[in-house]
Amino acid sequence: MKPIKVGLLGLGTVGTGVVRIVEGHQEDLQNQAGSSIVIEKVLVQNKTKARAISVPQEKLTEDPWDIIRNPEIDVVVEVMGGIGNTRDYILEALSLGKHVVTANKDLMALHGPEILAKAREHGCDVLYEASVAGGIPILRTLVEGFSSDRITKIMGIVNGTTNYILTKMSQEGASYGDVLKEAQALGYAESDPTSDVEGLDAARKMTILATLGFRTHVSLDTVSTQGISSVTKEDILYAKRLGYELKLLGIAERQDDSISISVQPTMVKSTHPIASVNGVFNAVYVYGEAVGETMFYGAGAGELPTATSIVADLVAVVKNIKLGVGGKKNALTYNETRQKTDEEISSKYFLLLHVADRAGVLAQITQVFAAFEVSLQSVLQQPNPNNPEAEIIIITHDANKAAVAKVLETFHKLDVVHTVKSVYRVEG
Amino acid sequence: MKPIKVGLLGLGTVGTGVVRIVEGHQEDLQNQAGSSIVIEKVLVQNKTKARAISVPQEKLTEDPWDIIRNPEIDVVVEVMGGIGNTRDYILEALSLGKHVVTANKDLMALHGPEILAKAREHGCDVLYEASVAGGIPILRTLVEGFSSDRITKIMGIVNGTTNYILTKMSQEGASYGDVLKEAQALGYAESDPTSDVEGLDAARKMTILATLGFRTHVSLDTVSTQGISSVTKEDILYAKRLGYELKLLGIAERQDDSISISVQPTMVKSTHPIASVNGVFNAVYVYGEAVGETMFYGAGAGELPTATSIVADLVAVVKNIKLGVGGKKNALTYNETRQKTDEEISSKYFLLLHVADRAGVLAQITQVFAAFEVSLQSVLQQPNPNNPEAEIIIITHDANKAAVAKVLETFHKLDVVHTVKSVYRVEG
Repeated sequence: MKPIKVGLLGLGTVGTGVVRIVEGHQEDLQNQAGSSIVIEKVLVQNKTKARAISVPQEKLTEDPWDIIRNPEIDVVVEVMGGIGNTRDYILEALSLGKHVVTANKDLMALHGPEILAKAREHGCDVLYEASVAGGIPILRTLVEGFSSDRITKIMGIVNGTTNYILTKMSQEGASYGDVLKEAQALGYAESDPTSDVEGLDAARKMTILATLGFRTHVSLDTVSTQGISSVTKEDILYAKRLGYELKLLGIAERQDDSISISVQPTMVKSTHPIASVNGVFNAVYVYGEAVGETMFYGAGAGELPTATSIVADLVAVVKNIKLGVGGKKNALTYNETRQKTDEEISSKYFLLLHVADRAGVLAQITQVFAAFEVSLQSVLQQPNPNNPEAEIIIITHDANKAAVAKVLETFHKLDVVHTVKSVYRVEG
Repeated sequence: MKPIKVGLLGLGTVGTGVVRIVEGHQEDLQNQAGSSIVIEKVLVQNKTKARAISVPQEKLTEDPWDIIRNPEIDVVVEVMGGIGNTRDYILEALSLGKHVVTANKDLMALHGPEILAKAREHGCDVLYEASVAGGIPILRTLVEGFSSDRITKIMGIVNGTTNYILTKMSQEGASYGDVLKEAQALGYAESDPTSDVEGLDAARKMTILATLGFRTHVSLDTVSTQGISSVTKEDILYAKRLGYELKLLGIAERQDDSISISVQPTMVKSTHPIASVNGVFNAVYVYGEAVGETMFYGAGAGELPTATSIVADLVAVVKNIKLGVGGKKNALTYNETRQKTDEEISSKYFLLLHVADRAGVLAQITQVFAAFEVSLQSVLQQPNPNNPEAEIIIITHDANKAAVAKVLETFHKLDVVHTVKSVYRVEG
């Protein structure tokens, strides 16, 4: 069997990992895939730059079309990131009959349907396991492991940077700003951390998870997204005191034909399996009607974990090529669904209010909840240690998002409510 | 596309779940698999018995050959258990070109190579995801998700009964005997619990996990197996006090070409992800050289979780039939490995000794460890509350199994050592 030739777009951290695994595990890969796998060409920005691994000079190119339009190349592995040119390269590669493996969550979240349609048209595989939760094989689990089940909920800690920050804040009582600076110094957070800390990265990954888990088309712009930049150490302290951990959770829910997807800091009951996922680790919790609760845990990023997923996809593509079934097994999205309205999205909420410390205030506040039919699970009133006012901590029973918004709107107009300090979704 | 016809061997708990999912999710399955899936015949012991689900009388049969030799049937799903007749049925079905999905861990652990060879010979698929850890898709994760990696360690809580018993003992300070009785009353343990509590069930599952994870032939009789029937509530109390949970762990390790597999009650550091897997839940922890730490969590048994895995296998088989690649994708075991000797098996150990309470005893005991080059991580001596003797609690550094056995042998001969109360492997 002739070797399968791979063109690698990008030789950064993950690209380096792909080269290391393909070369280091060559014999194993050949046993698995039934063919040897050769990295034929590698796109780099600068051929003369010093690198962590040695790649023969004649394999390096600065021209992407050397790979995309190279008739020798069977599979394009894209680890360069970006969505502008990258999209063009991938569409062109597919239209020339090349299979594609990509780690590009932005591209798949924004242009997944277009890319998969092009792949179908030309009989090509497109696999993208590494785009979500690095080394955790969660996409094939959703597509194949749970093909028999109806998944109704997916909750993910899918951004290592924010989980690192929240874990540090929780374990050390540190402030958001201090931990962010430390994370930047350690290379866990970028100098412009917006995409991570504002939940945008997680929203893209949740779009991909929900698309595959619910087998439906999900548009990124329907994902309601809130980051962690306004989380305080006091919030985390309150959460712990009540038996919760504060986590940036992506939550995708499905009920019959309606779905909702959101990303937000969420208080998770500390006995829930996802509550103890700490540091840069990722985890995806999946609830299926038949299988019940499951969770998948591992490294969400990093050179070798991410490359593990890419090369596993590459093995799958090579097997399909050998069996002559390339492009026949791409995941399908056949369910017609609609986005839930805020009236249909239901969860528990935590609220921390600063209120006037005088008779009748609690009654006034609880009447607002009652007026919008939000029932309360627990209420705690105590003096605010810093001001001559009272603190009220409330956890609601399941309530719909629209009703909670109305409660908050009413609070903003009430004199006795000085500040709505925090509002968090509650899970578990 | 003509419907794919399934013969179901067995209509107990899991068989009932298979019928429920195939019927309840028919439209979804058709979308996934590209064909409708019909349960054509069901083997039962007694056609007239009342059942939890209604299956048309003409589909029931009491004769297995009605299914095995039925030319209409494309796939045999085996959920009857046992290894004698069942093996004959499956071998015959394969030799007649029928694909097989089975939940039978005993059969696959004991006769896996023979069955897979027969499948290869006749171009048939054999899938058995449900045989290990019920609803957790761990076998396809090992085979496909980590095809690119070299797995060096697999640790599993793969028996729900024993995990339920140990969790109850830990949470309620109850004795083994009392919790076992309760588990039997609740149906979590069988009236003869030997296979579960003595670790035999877990050993079979570890054989399958190690075969697929290490891609080598593993023989069940090389699995060193110890159950939980002699675990005391005091052991669990000591474990907790030192920051550990006591779990029945299957541990499979690989170093280059040597492997070792064992099942034993193990003290797991409470910060390790597998330490917080409680009750009847299962989890499999997988360490790969590239991917690092991962863990997969979910229901290990039960009607619908187990049936989820079986029907997911069925969908995979149907896809393969449609693509004409049946039998081309069975997992391979090409690595030549040998069993590690006791000198090569290394781990930490916990020991609880009752010793004479007089000067020089601790020195005598620590000299024994030193003589066999076992170094100690921590030593605690305290009075035994029940007898005029001392208790010594030791945790070793990594030590080889042979050396620890020699230490214990020496203790049995020493007058000052009254009793070696407990010896446990330590992880994490």
